[in-house]
Amino acid sequence: MSKPNDIELILVGDELLKGERSDAHLAWLGRALLQSGVRIARAQAVGDTVEAIAEAVRESAARARVVITTGGLGPTTDDITRDGVAAALGLGLAFDAPTWEAIVAFFAARGREASENNRRQAMFPEGARILGNAQGTAPGFAVESRDLTVFVLPGPPLEMRPIFEAAVRARVAEIFGREPLRVETFRTTGIGESQMVSTLGEAIEKADGYVVSFLPSLVGVDVVLTQAPGAAADAPLESEAARVEKLLRDHLGAKLYEHGERSLAGVVHDLLVRRRETLGVAESLTGGSIGQTLTDIPGASAYFLAGAVTYSDASKRAMLGVAEETLARYGAVSEETCTEMAHGIRRSAGATYGIATTGIAGPTGGTAKKPVGLCYLGLAWEGGCHVKRVRYHGERDAVRRRAAHGALWLLYDHLAAR
Amino acid sequence: MSKPNDIELILVGDELLKGERSDAHLAWLGRALLQSGVRIARAQAVGDTVEAIAEAVRESAARARVVITTGGLGPTTDDITRDGVAAALGLGLAFDAPTWEAIVAFFAARGREASENNRRQAMFPEGARILGNAQGTAPGFAVESRDLTVFVLPGPPLEMRPIFEAAVRARVAEIFGREPLRVETFRTTGIGESQMVSTLGEAIEKADGYVVSFLPSLVGVDVVLTQAPGAAADAPLESEAARVEKLLRDHLGAKLYEHGERSLAGVVHDLLVRRRETLGVAESLTGGSIGQTLTDIPGASAYFLAGAVTYSDASKRAMLGVAEETLARYGAVSEETCTEMAHGIRRSAGATYGIATTGIAGPTGGTAKKPVGLCYLGLAWEGGCHVKRVRYHGERDAVRRRAAHGALWLLYDHLAAR
Repeated sequence: MSKPNDIELILVGDELLKGERSDAHLAWLGRALLQSGVRIARAQAVGDTVEAIAEAVRESAARARVVITTGGLGPTTDDITRDGVAAALGLGLAFDAPTWEAIVAFFAARGREASENNRRQAMFPEGARILGNAQGTAPGFAVESRDLTVFVLPGPPLEMRPIFEAAVRARVAEIFGREPLRVETFRTTGIGESQMVSTLGEAIEKADGYVVSFLPSLVGVDVVLTQAPGAAADAPLESEAARVEKLLRDHLGAKLYEHGERSLAGVVHDLLVRRRETLGVAESLTGGSIGQTLTDIPGASAYFLAGAVTYSDASKRAMLGVAEETLARYGAVSEETCTEMAHGIRRSAGATYGIATTGIAGPTGGTAKKPVGLCYLGLAWEGGCHVKRVRYHGERDAVRRRAAHGALWLLYDHLAAR
Repeated sequence: MSKPNDIELILVGDELLKGERSDAHLAWLGRALLQSGVRIARAQAVGDTVEAIAEAVRESAARARVVITTGGLGPTTDDITRDGVAAALGLGLAFDAPTWEAIVAFFAARGREASENNRRQAMFPEGARILGNAQGTAPGFAVESRDLTVFVLPGPPLEMRPIFEAAVRARVAEIFGREPLRVETFRTTGIGESQMVSTLGEAIEKADGYVVSFLPSLVGVDVVLTQAPGAAADAPLESEAARVEKLLRDHLGAKLYEHGERSLAGVVHDLLVRRRETLGVAESLTGGSIGQTLTDIPGASAYFLAGAVTYSDASKRAMLGVAEETLARYGAVSEETCTEMAHGIRRSAGATYGIATTGIAGPTGGTAKKPVGLCYLGLAWEGGCHVKRVRYHGERDAVRRRAAHGALWLLYDHLAAR
């Protein structure tokens, strides 16, 4: 019997529907499964009632070969996914002594005692295969029949992901036996979605064997080519990806900063490490977010020497050596101050490059001459400096994120040109 | 005719199912709608085909009084939500000249021309009420009949949210005529979900008139009481919330840092502003994230003077005055270095308080004596300093986030005690 959908996902939890928590599973699982060539055809979020869970499982099971649920395996009384899944599949629940012993040991190792609530976590639908959980106390499980596999996984990402890697990924690959779908991502900045689509859309979308997505974000547009599930075996995937890259490069130059999955910070990281060059960062309106973004990546200490978050005028003078006269005459948000900030951090950190941001993030602080969104982004190197004046639109968070991205891109543009 | 569900949400987009983008709408809309006393009963994510969209709309329309869709209104050929909704409701599409003129004007104001692709954005199901979009080019729309209202909103949050505020919120309140549901949030840190549930769970869960959720995150557990939809009119909501607060306070002390919606950074922000005190931040392993978190909040310049992201030993000496001997003798990750960092940033920023982080975020850099996850968190004030040694578990990102939160909590604990 063949079903129309590969995989459906069921996210369990009132907290998702009430907005107490954002879902992190759909995007993560969607990407992870694509690596096995299979796609989530549909996802649902349902509340914490046995009926809602059972109904969703029944519906998805009728359409999909594999159903994955996340959440609702914890120790509280509203953690009832096991009951909903068992009801949907017409199975009873059975106590598993080894799981209970593992839970008791988990708590004992932390000097605590497992509670009666935890005992529920050792109950599984009859015939379920238990998928251990080294990270917490809620094991997942799988129930398999001839044309349906249901994986039931815990909600905390730090618990769900290791179980997926250890016990779900390989089984899914086995069930479908697919080749991974080829995905080509091109990351751009400084051009809007509409402009991209109207100038390049048609030429990109005719890429043979691919489905094309344009994914705009606050800081740019990603162009993603995903191999069409039914692409012909002889589709010229390699050469089509190269054609699209050339098209984007010819029109956008350094605004195309990545062919792959790296963030702009990741690209800059790799360039600086390879060149054995170093960086200092002076942030005003971005408040530390450039430093945070760069140091998210392991190994940043190879090039990232220091950051100065100089929110006050006094700290711009003390930490970066910006002249009192510059601040008095031109103001903190000015080309002159930005220039001195970039040079200042480069000098004090002893780095190859210094980058700097100063601007008005809003919502208050704007004037007619210096409106909210006005930013100066600076880059200093031995013997030179480049400062760019920009006006970002949007709210405080958008202005800050665009400024942080824009300053990193200045450095990328400089590195890419040499 | 009465339907079982208030509202269902349909998120449209292959990019959600392929993990190219994380959904941001469910949590935001769930919270926003709860303020009108109505709940999203179920949410679905579907791909970019007319059939999938139409099927989801039909299913949700059968169960819910209001259906909201997001996404798929853009200018590209896979933006087909309008077609799917029209098909589900058995309506044709009609061209709306005023919308087209607004789109043309939007582009003209930016020195560009609307394309033929944009023309699709001026097509709406017959009888639809158009919901303008000042932020972009994709207007939303609503289709209303006696027992069903379908709101069709654009995908970019910066476009969806203003339309929701301007045209959806009030109409939904009118349709349901509900009182807002009371929500009481208690935010805690330093206690795990299992421990919280086993020690306090039973006493909290008997809160009369409320549904209780325990929401664990990397940095703590939120306890959320949401008024039960069918709570008796005389349920003692006020006194029950006070009872739960006292219970948590008695057991947790300052580990309960908020009754309300503020983040820990927001609580610290308000305390410092009210006391007219100031702060400097010295970050090593957290890389700027404390500065970033604090300056996310408008008005941070009232107390946040400066941050130093001292990733290298040299910058710890130069920017914070950490003694060369301290670094040589005890190492960068030590109580002694953390103490000098906290004092150093306090002194150089001229602030009331200095906080500092140093530690090993991983995945590499750990040793037997100083393993990955070992962190020192410091707080310095006039005449005193407190340094805490902690060992965080988890991956790099988890260690960094826990360290940033832990350092802010040190400051909160100090401020709350006085």
